[in-house]
Amino acid sequence: MSPLRFDEARSVVFARVREMLGDPQLETVSLDEAHGRVLGRDVRSDRDYPPFNRSARDGFAVIAADVAQVPAELELIGETRAGEPSLFALEPGQTVEIMTGAPGPRNADAVVMVEHSTRNGPRVTLHRSIASGRNLIMAGSETRRGQLVMSAGRRIGYAQTALLGTVGCAEVTVCRRPEIAILSTGDEVLPVDSQPEPYQIRNSNAHSLAAQISRRGGLPRILPVARDRLDETRELIEDGLRSDLLILSGGVSMGKHDLVEEVLSDLGAEIFFTKVRIQPGKPLVFGRVGGTPVFGLPGNPLSTMVTFEVVASVAVDLLGGATDSPLRFRGARLAAPFRHKPVLTRFIGAVLEGDYGDATVRPERGQGSGDVAAFARANCLMVASDAQASWDAGDWIEVMRL
Amino acid sequence: MSPLRFDEARSVVFARVREMLGDPQLETVSLDEAHGRVLGRDVRSDRDYPPFNRSARDGFAVIAADVAQVPAELELIGETRAGEPSLFALEPGQTVEIMTGAPGPRNADAVVMVEHSTRNGPRVTLHRSIASGRNLIMAGSETRRGQLVMSAGRRIGYAQTALLGTVGCAEVTVCRRPEIAILSTGDEVLPVDSQPEPYQIRNSNAHSLAAQISRRGGLPRILPVARDRLDETRELIEDGLRSDLLILSGGVSMGKHDLVEEVLSDLGAEIFFTKVRIQPGKPLVFGRVGGTPVFGLPGNPLSTMVTFEVVASVAVDLLGGATDSPLRFRGARLAAPFRHKPVLTRFIGAVLEGDYGDATVRPERGQGSGDVAAFARANCLMVASDAQASWDAGDWIEVMRL
Repeated sequence: MSPLRFDEARSVVFARVREMLGDPQLETVSLDEAHGRVLGRDVRSDRDYPPFNRSARDGFAVIAADVAQVPAELELIGETRAGEPSLFALEPGQTVEIMTGAPGPRNADAVVMVEHSTRNGPRVTLHRSIASGRNLIMAGSETRRGQLVMSAGRRIGYAQTALLGTVGCAEVTVCRRPEIAILSTGDEVLPVDSQPEPYQIRNSNAHSLAAQISRRGGLPRILPVARDRLDETRELIEDGLRSDLLILSGGVSMGKHDLVEEVLSDLGAEIFFTKVRIQPGKPLVFGRVGGTPVFGLPGNPLSTMVTFEVVASVAVDLLGGATDSPLRFRGARLAAPFRHKPVLTRFIGAVLEGDYGDATVRPERGQGSGDVAAFARANCLMVASDAQASWDAGDWIEVMRL
Repeated sequence: MSPLRFDEARSVVFARVREMLGDPQLETVSLDEAHGRVLGRDVRSDRDYPPFNRSARDGFAVIAADVAQVPAELELIGETRAGEPSLFALEPGQTVEIMTGAPGPRNADAVVMVEHSTRNGPRVTLHRSIASGRNLIMAGSETRRGQLVMSAGRRIGYAQTALLGTVGCAEVTVCRRPEIAILSTGDEVLPVDSQPEPYQIRNSNAHSLAAQISRRGGLPRILPVARDRLDETRELIEDGLRSDLLILSGGVSMGKHDLVEEVLSDLGAEIFFTKVRIQPGKPLVFGRVGGTPVFGLPGNPLSTMVTFEVVASVAVDLLGGATDSPLRFRGARLAAPFRHKPVLTRFIGAVLEGDYGDATVRPERGQGSGDVAAFARANCLMVASDAQASWDAGDWIEVMRL
């Protein structure tokens, strides 16, 4: 099997995890807790929106035909503030003073802004004519009662929070957070609170994965580091398989002492792919043991982070009830020329600078896929396509958020 | 004072809030809890990275000069796995078998990959010559002990989590979350769990603001809705001023019944601006009462969300200890022509579709700045500059994340 492109690998993960999904497990939380979660059930509008003919301006509600010729003097029959019901119905030649957010009187079809009026006791002179419908948003024109306004499987951002609040969802049915087990492997790996010998490193991978998982709404469960012994590795892998997804870091580079593949094979794993044509992260295993998907990510810190973000994150999104898992690329201009051998798609920690209209991106050069300090100076991933060998300064190149 | 452009308004907020900042208040949390927070103290590297000459490959550690001519037969003097100290020093003509992540023997300056070797008992034939330094990352080449690796004021994403874990920060000193009071105003506004009359609406603004504030690391405090009475409005504003920042929604449109400005004036507020040339959101008040910054955002749901995101968010970032507050624009191609009157910068809820290499954006057309359902279908804000009147299909236009 020849190694997959990253988008092909994403498609495989998408299809396989979808096959494994059971019915989503739901729970109910408050509107404020729902932010960042995935909606569990379709939400329909509880009433028409706006629920009344709502004024978009402070001014005078009119029958537009009455102000076809201006100046037009109208009889002022009352006033309506926001939060009050409208008590009026306009006859030709009449107007009601009205505040932003207030309901228009019956028969009104437009609002002339207060700036274009002169008040003379019980009469008002309006100096601007106006088209029917202007500054008065008709009941039901935005949303009809019973209309689907948000589908199950959509992630709840702040705009969706506003929508759910508007239609009265003080509580929201959301999908349960998927539990994601994280297992780092290797005799050289120690917990982050330990003082390693010169030939040892700390288990930073478990914590960056936990952050990446949390950010997508998953519940990370960090297992103890699996040392390079068969029985211990097997026991921890079996423990991890009790979660909704197991993510291993390290132990999949086909090295002589890598035990992960041996254990997975013993457990009857079905492997869907073992390599993806990206850098960092070429050895990248995806499979299943029974009903639980498993990833084996490379152990170098940058490789672990990038392969999760580019490929494994799809599984976390789907297990969390989301119906899609987009990467959200954007373009930026290269600050300097860039060249690579176009055999892999490269994801390179990079610094995006400037903002409105003039964003430029430059790779944050480090010493390799273990140089966490260089990677942590980056604020995006620059994506060098395997279909292009060189870019000039000022050329557009893809970036994705870090 | 003529209304400001949005970037000028952001600069005013940045400068004024900076003047009001005291020393940041710090607290210590676990590494996993630190994700999304702002670093409170500079972090320096606890040792050299890599801490030893680390092999980037499974293979044979060599003196590069020994394999200048290939094939080269070398004496195999031992083996080092990851997690073991190196017990060896190479003499010319010798090699050590070495695993990815393991420390190289003394005098080695490169690693030949195992794929380019043939093993014959105690001797190994290597078939590729290699440059000095290749596949062996020298101690200290990434980071030196004592070197600044992350500055106070930087937000902790997953890459920074990896870095902090690597240098042994099992606990992290972060800036205290700023408390942000949220006060919606207006007789027409009811709590989200209530059943409004046709002329009333629910207080969705408080909850979308809470989501926007939480996402930036602030602690939202939602106050009861201020009805249109002077004493009640004043009492709630005074309560809100006890937080680090007060954000009002509604009551700033200069209407006849808007009490907010009257109260702020009574309290001796210093106002820095009252309008910004953006749509939605023209009336946008920023000032201070004593040492507390205050925003008056327009009350329409879309206006509230957009003005927070584009202008007020700067204050939340700074009060949270962050040293910057970038907007992160990106470009995408317009799916269809777009035209506007270039007097304001327009922020339009839009749908970004496609991903790698072919993102297109199209505005999500709604009925106006109250159409939350249309806005919630958007996944980005398209930014129509006040310096350009029309765009063709396929033209690049700025977008920012929603």
